[in-house]
Amino acid sequence: MPTHADVGVIGLAVMGRNLARNFARHGCAVALYNRSEAKTRALVDEFGHEGTFVPTESLTAFVTALARPRRLVIMVQAGAPTDTVIEQLTPLLEPGDVIIDGGNAHFADTRRREAALRERGIEFIGAGISGGEEGALNGPSIMPGGTAAAYEKVAPLLTAVSAHVDGTPCCTHVGPDGSGHFVKMVHNGIEYADMQLIAEAYDLLRRAGGQEPAALAETFRRWNGGRLASYLIEITAEVLGHTDADTGGPLVDVIADQAGQKGTGRWTVQTALDLGVPVSGIAEAVFARSLSGHAPVRAAARALPGPTPQALPPEDAARFTEQVEQALYASKVVSYAQGWHMIAAAAEEHGWDIDLGRLATIWRGGCIIRADFLNRIRAAYAADPRLPSLLADEEFAKELGAAQDAWREVIATAARLGIPTPGFCAALAYYDALRGGTLPTALVQAQRDYFGAHTYRRTDREGSFHTRWGADRSEERIG
Amino acid sequence: MPTHADVGVIGLAVMGRNLARNFARHGCAVALYNRSEAKTRALVDEFGHEGTFVPTESLTAFVTALARPRRLVIMVQAGAPTDTVIEQLTPLLEPGDVIIDGGNAHFADTRRREAALRERGIEFIGAGISGGEEGALNGPSIMPGGTAAAYEKVAPLLTAVSAHVDGTPCCTHVGPDGSGHFVKMVHNGIEYADMQLIAEAYDLLRRAGGQEPAALAETFRRWNGGRLASYLIEITAEVLGHTDADTGGPLVDVIADQAGQKGTGRWTVQTALDLGVPVSGIAEAVFARSLSGHAPVRAAARALPGPTPQALPPEDAARFTEQVEQALYASKVVSYAQGWHMIAAAAEEHGWDIDLGRLATIWRGGCIIRADFLNRIRAAYAADPRLPSLLADEEFAKELGAAQDAWREVIATAARLGIPTPGFCAALAYYDALRGGTLPTALVQAQRDYFGAHTYRRTDREGSFHTRWGADRSEERIG
Repeated sequence: MPTHADVGVIGLAVMGRNLARNFARHGCAVALYNRSEAKTRALVDEFGHEGTFVPTESLTAFVTALARPRRLVIMVQAGAPTDTVIEQLTPLLEPGDVIIDGGNAHFADTRRREAALRERGIEFIGAGISGGEEGALNGPSIMPGGTAAAYEKVAPLLTAVSAHVDGTPCCTHVGPDGSGHFVKMVHNGIEYADMQLIAEAYDLLRRAGGQEPAALAETFRRWNGGRLASYLIEITAEVLGHTDADTGGPLVDVIADQAGQKGTGRWTVQTALDLGVPVSGIAEAVFARSLSGHAPVRAAARALPGPTPQALPPEDAARFTEQVEQALYASKVVSYAQGWHMIAAAAEEHGWDIDLGRLATIWRGGCIIRADFLNRIRAAYAADPRLPSLLADEEFAKELGAAQDAWREVIATAARLGIPTPGFCAALAYYDALRGGTLPTALVQAQRDYFGAHTYRRTDREGSFHTRWGADRSEERIG
Repeated sequence: MPTHADVGVIGLAVMGRNLARNFARHGCAVALYNRSEAKTRALVDEFGHEGTFVPTESLTAFVTALARPRRLVIMVQAGAPTDTVIEQLTPLLEPGDVIIDGGNAHFADTRRREAALRERGIEFIGAGISGGEEGALNGPSIMPGGTAAAYEKVAPLLTAVSAHVDGTPCCTHVGPDGSGHFVKMVHNGIEYADMQLIAEAYDLLRRAGGQEPAALAETFRRWNGGRLASYLIEITAEVLGHTDADTGGPLVDVIADQAGQKGTGRWTVQTALDLGVPVSGIAEAVFARSLSGHAPVRAAARALPGPTPQALPPEDAARFTEQVEQALYASKVVSYAQGWHMIAAAAEEHGWDIDLGRLATIWRGGCIIRADFLNRIRAAYAADPRLPSLLADEEFAKELGAAQDAWREVIATAARLGIPTPGFCAALAYYDALRGGTLPTALVQAQRDYFGAHTYRRTDREGSFHTRWGADRSEERIG
C-alpha cells in the first residue's frame, strides 16, 4: 500500500467505480470513498487485482490518504448531493488542492461552486464526462472546465484515462469555471438531435421506402461506411438487426414507442433560449420524446384524418434511400451548427475562451456522438477560427448545396405521406432562413410596433422609429 | 375629494396610468402613487377631468387614502422592483387587504409572493393584463390568479374595466396563486406563434404567390372576414397596406427584418420544457425571432446555395392563396392545442382547477390574440370539459382533415422553393406524430438502452427490460 494515493474517487456507483478502475489500470494509486462502505469493499474485492486501491472509511481518512496537492474526483448525484460532499470536504482540504466534479452538474451550479471554492484557495474543476459506464471504464471523453493552473495539475491524470483517437486524448481544457459542464450539456443536446434525425430516417425508409428492419440494418451498416459513420449509426444497425427472442420478430417492434429523457436535452434548449440562440433541431428532438410519452393525448388524437399510408413504388426505393441519406446528413450538419453557435454565444456571454475546433477533437472518441465527422468540424475551425457558423464553412456549404435537392424532396414526400419529420423540417427551415436575404420578421416587427409601440429600425437610415398607427399614421423617430 | 378611494394604483408609467384612467372612467375613486411625483401630477393635470383621482406623495398616504379592505394594483416593472414595492407596502397593510400585481411577473415569482403574503394575512392576486396601452385604457383582458375569496373582493373592479364581448367580461378567476400570470405567459407564447405563422403565410404569398404588399393587404382583409378573423390578421392587413411616406414604397419593405422580443415567449417554451409538453409552434416562433437578430451568422450564411427563386405560374396563384389559408388555419389550431395542453399540464402539476373553456372566453376581447376563433375553443371544452387535446375535438378534427391536403401541399412547395416555414412544418409534424399509430421513438429508446442501459418497456407485457447488448444480447427484466 502506498502512503499517498495519486488520485481519489468519492462515490462508487457504476460511473465512479469504473472511473476508479480506469485510473488504477493506468498505474495510479486510487483512494476510494463511498458513503456506504459496502460499495468500497465490493470494488476492492472484485477488482483489487487491477491496480492499487486505497479504500477508506471516512472522508478524513480519504483526504489523508491523498498526496498533495490533493486531486480527487466527486462522482455523486448532481445537485444537492454534490453540494453536501463539497461542504464536508472543504474543511479537510488545503489551498492548492483540486476537486474535480465528474457528475452531470448544471453549468450554473459549477460556476457557483467554482467561485465559492476559489475564495478559499481550493481549485475546482467541473468536468463533463461522456461515454456512460463503458466509457468511464475504457476511456471517456472528458471536458474539464476551471482555471488553467488547476487543469495543469490534473491534466496528466485525466488525459491518461480518456479515450484516444489517432494518438490524441479526448480530453482538453475547455475553459474557465462552468464551461466544461456547459459543453457536456450541449454534447447531450446534439446527441438528442442526432438520435431524432436517425429515428426520422428509419421511419421514412420503413414507411415510405418499404424496408423492413433487417434490410434497414443493412442500410445503416452501409451508411456507417460513409460520411455518416458514427457510434449512433453503428448501434442503430445493431438494434434494427436484433431479433426478439420471445416473438421472433424485430426487437424494435416490441419496444414501446415512448422515449425517456434525463434532462440534459431540456437544459440545452432552455439555456439556448436564454442565450437567444436558435437550436430548433435539439428542441424538436426533446419535444418528440415528450410527445411520445403523452399516451392519453395520442390516444385521443389517433382518429385524426391523414393520407392513406402508402410506400413509394419499388423502383423509386433505392433512389429514396439515397435521398434520405442526404437529408439526414444535411440535417445533422445543421444540428451541429446550432450546437456550436450556442457554445460560441455562451463563450462570449461568460467570457470563456473556448477553442471551438479543439472541442470537436475531444468528441471524436469516448462519447455518444463520437464520429469521424467531428474531424470535419475541426478542419472548418482550423480554416477559420472565427467562423460565425459551421454552415459558412466552404466544405459544409458545398455538401449542403449538393444535398439540398434530395433534402427538399424527402420533406415534400414525408409531408404528402403523413410521416412526421420535425427534425428534418426544422433543419431545412433554419438553412433556408439563414441563407434567405430577407426574412418576413419585418412584418412581425411592424405588428409589434402596431400593438405595442415597440418601434422598428429602418433599412435606409439609423434610428428607431414608430408609426402612429392609431392616429394619422405618420412616422416618428424615437431614438 | 373622497375620504376613501375605491382602488389604488402604484406605478404610473403608461400601463399604470391608463389602467388608473380606466378605473376612474368607470366611476371609481382612484388613489395614485408613483415613485417620482411628476408622473402623478402629470396624470392629474392631464386627465383629472375624467374622474376622481386621489394623488398621494408617499406610500403611507397612499395606503391611508384607501377604503378597507384595501384594494391596490401594482403596475411597476416585473422582478426586483415589484418585490421592493411589496416589501415597502406590507408593513402598511392589514389582514384582508388585497394586492393585485398587474405587471408581467413570472408565475413562479407570483407563487412565491402569494405564499409569503398569505402568511401575513394579506391577499395577493397575480393578474395577467393583456392588450397593451390601448387595452389598459379601454378594456384589457384580465387573468387574475389567487384565492377565490381574494378574487371576490376585486371582481367588481376588474370586470368593470375589462373588455367585454357579447356582454361577457374578458376577466375571470383563473385559479390559485400563479395561475393568472401563467396563462398570461401562455397567451403571449400563442401570440408569438400566431405572428410567426402569419409571417410565413405572408412570405409564401409574396415569394411563391407573387403578390405584392398592396394585394396582400387585400388578401388578409378578406381572410379577416372568415374563420381567421382576428386582431392580428386585421393589423397585418393594415401594416401591409401602409405606404412609407419617405420612399413611397410599402412600409414593410423598409423595416429591418430583425424582430425583437421581451421574454415571455422564451419563458413559455422554457416552462413547457419543464412540464414535458411539446410546444414546437411557439418554440419555432421564438427561434425565428432570435435567428433574425443574428446578423453576423446570417451574413456569413448568405452565400449558401438554394433553389432558384421563382413564383408559381399565375394561373396557380389563386389556388395557392386558398391553400395557404388552409395551412395557416391548421397550423394555428395546432399552436392553440399545444398552448392549451401546456395549461392543462400546469394545472395538474400545481393543483390549479382551471376552466379551460372559460379561459378561451376571456381572450375573445382586449388581448392581442383576440378573435372569434376563441369561441370555437370554448365550444370544444363545453362539449367535453375533459378533452385531452383540442385536436381531439370533433369539429377541429373535421376542419384539419379538410385542410390537410392543402397544408401538405404548401409545405412541399415551400421546401422545394426554399421558403422557410418552420411554424407550418412544426405544426404538421405534431399533427402527424399525434395521429400516427406508432412512433419511431421505439428506436430512440432502444438506442438509449444500448448505450446507457436505460431499459425499455415492451408492448406485449409489463415491466422494464434491458438487452445485454455488450454480451450475449439476451434480455433481462429489470423491474
